[in-house]
Amino acid sequence: MSDTFLIEYDDAEPAARAVFEEIAAARGIDPRQVNNFWKAMARHPAQMRRMWSNMKTVMVPGALDALTKELIYVAVSVTNNCEYCIASHGAQARRRGMTEEMFGELMAVVGLANETNRLATGYRVPVDDAFKVP
Amino acid sequence: MSDTFLIEYDDAEPAARAVFEEIAAARGIDPRQVNNFWKAMARHPAQMRRMWSNMKTVMVPGALDALTKELIYVAVSVTNNCEYCIASHGAQARRRGMTEEMFGELMAVVGLANETNRLATGYRVPVDDAFKVP
Amino acid sequence: MSDTFLIEYDDAEPAARAVFEEIAAARGIDPRQVNNFWKAMARHPAQMRRMWSNMKTVMVPGALDALTKELIYVAVSVTNNCEYCIASHGAQARRRGMTEEMFGELMAVVGLANETNRLATGYRVPVDDAFKVP
Amino acid sequence: MSDTFLIEYDDAEPAARAVFEEIAAARGIDPRQVNNFWKAMARHPAQMRRMWSNMKTVMVPGALDALTKELIYVAVSVTNNCEYCIASHGAQARRRGMTEEMFGELMAVVGLANETNRLATGYRVPVDDAFKVP
Amino acid sequence: MSDTFLIEYDDAEPAARAVFEEIAAARGIDPRQVNNFWKAMARHPAQMRRMWSNMKTVMVPGALDALTKELIYVAVSVTNNCEYCIASHGAQARRRGMTEEMFGELMAVVGLANETNRLATGYRVPVDDAFKVP
Amino acid sequence: MSDTFLIEYDDAEPAARAVFEEIAAARGIDPRQVNNFWKAMARHPAQMRRMWSNMKTVMVPGALDALTKELIYVAVSVTNNCEYCIASHGAQARRRGMTEEMFGELMAVVGLANETNRLATGYRVPVDDAFKVP
Repeated sequence: MSDTFLIEYDDAEPAARAVFEEIAAARGIDPRQVNNFWKAMARHPAQMRRMWSNMKTVMVPGALDALTKELIYVAVSVTNNCEYCIASHGAQARRRGMTEEMFGELMAVVGLANETNRLATGYRVPVDDAFKVP
Repeated sequence: MSDTFLIEYDDAEPAARAVFEEIAAARGIDPRQVNNFWKAMARHPAQMRRMWSNMKTVMVPGALDALTKELIYVAVSVTNNCEYCIASHGAQARRRGMTEEMFGELMAVVGLANETNRLATGYRVPVDDAFKVP
Repeated sequence: MSDTFLIEYDDAEPAARAVFEEIAAARGIDPRQVNNFWKAMARHPAQMRRMWSNMKTVMVPGALDALTKELIYVAVSVTNNCEYCIASHGAQARRRGMTEEMFGELMAVVGLANETNRLATGYRVPVDDAFKVP
Repeated sequence: MSDTFLIEYDDAEPAARAVFEEIAAARGIDPRQVNNFWKAMARHPAQMRRMWSNMKTVMVPGALDALTKELIYVAVSVTNNCEYCIASHGAQARRRGMTEEMFGELMAVVGLANETNRLATGYRVPVDDAFKVP
Repeated sequence: MSDTFLIEYDDAEPAARAVFEEIAAARGIDPRQVNNFWKAMARHPAQMRRMWSNMKTVMVPGALDALTKELIYVAVSVTNNCEYCIASHGAQARRRGMTEEMFGELMAVVGLANETNRLATGYRVPVDDAFKVP
Repeated sequence: MSDTFLIEYDDAEPAARAVFEEIAAARGIDPRQVNNFWKAMARHPAQMRRMWSNMKTVMVPGALDALTKELIYVAVSVTNNCEYCIASHGAQARRRGMTEEMFGELMAVVGLANETNRLATGYRVPVDDAFKVP
């Protein structure tokens, strides 16, 4: 690749540095400690800004608490087989209180849902009237 | 198809009828009201028994409560695009307390995770040392 | 859509009609009975020809017999959630000898593999040295 | 991670050691040679027991022989992009008789099915009446 | 479902009505003609606003023109098997100039990429040094 | 594995060497520089021939130019999480003119499409009449 792959905070364009700083402030860390995902996004500062704005808005505690949101994030990342996201959001979930026992149950639900998803599809099960949308 | 597609409780083999009855008892409903997934599984009573046994074990409240488990189930089903499972576990989640607001936040997390999963993959982001397993 | 969606044999371009005829001959049916997949492909005769050529070459009995190949086809189609392909290759598999009992075991393996695929991914299991490629 | 990542037989809880021993006995190997998947599952002995019980039941020869079941397992694992499962079940399939020629044909069917799955979906092909379920 | 499934413009909350109006203005249509995706999103006005903001920003012509962006959208939607998105972005692509011949070539590339993706994975092909990131 | 994993040009069977030579000629390189994907396919010369024939036919400039086809290839490969294909077709796309800015927009569309695909599915949005096929 002819382009820089990961961009460190010190080498970033001003627009990207500003996002590094916001992320760091939100997490109470130094901007140089922000994780690799954002160093990759820093190649395109407008996209980096867009994704950080989405992340902030969506992951804030609301009707669902912060840990539940991280568990859902991990469930999706495992189903999509995204190694990076499993690693980063798994760490985030543990920081927010996921115990090893909770992780075991999370994996069990994710595994079973993946199994029954395929069974429902393979058996071509029609949706029950009770579950139909109006 | 030369074989019966969905098997009603009254037409099921004794081994399948027994599972219908256990499901009905666990849910406080009549065995004839059990949903279509199980009527399809009833074609293979041993598999039906196996899946019910897994479902009971995995979905029981533990370190994660019953609602959280259903939210995770829906997140996986949406990511896998399983219409039946979105419908049935969506209904189950609502029965267990998922409000419309919680559903909106669940979808937002699922959507965003699917987006960032692809970005992390497409940018080929290496896992940070801090997230590495030993 | 401004373009014809499914093209019947009688309305097809000569290049597409020729493929309809080859498919029909290979299956011992009338060209008008060829299934919908090919009526869609007939919109692009060169692609239709390319896909029929691939299908013939790949699905011919070889080191794996015709039924085993259809079982594999169904396993992939279920995992990909392709309703059309589950329906058409399920029918093909039954024609080639898949019994209801075999279908039940096929679904059980497909379901379980989908579960353990996610568990191996979610637990981030490293490949054993014994399974490594040279 | 604050928790042990892979648990060796000698360090496992009694409930997990018992499963290691059953797996080893079924395979005629030493419990210390059991593959990494189970060392990860050993973190949650109840889940390890559940998965081993499923694996034993589903993979036993029945209407489909053991090799055919492994081929199906590999087909699903490739479609799901599970590196670990491709490696472990590929090895298992070879032990059960998969030749290099059979592997080549397996990959060809898996590849082609993935192609036509997307074509059927992209062309929005309606299911033929002949393939409809009752 | 106890909640309204699709929300029409006339029944929407003010915050959602404002988004309907922006979408309609951008497309030169009446707010009552906005497509179903947005009527579903209108159940959660803040999410509707967030998604519309993303859509506007990402789909605007830039280094890639509007048609190319729609082709990429369709390619992803086919690979993910999203019927709604194939239908809506397929229509959008045609409005932006996709001919039937271009659609045929798009499907051919999508199909072939899905095939070779699985082959590269199934054969466990290591990334060439020339393709490695620094 | 008891079989050779990657087969170099000098060790290949004549039928595979012929394909190496055709690929090299088409790219203006030495047959020993052909990338790893083909060295893996060389284990099964008939499949290698079949895939090269498909690749040549599908990727030739037509109604869509060569760069657009590579962008679509990358979009699919990212969605399928195929590391090898992202690496090889990413390199190919850059050779055909993809700038860093175009790559950023490509990723943005791929990311957003993956998000809205799941939202459309999760909200169970019915296809608008205007988007229905006849």
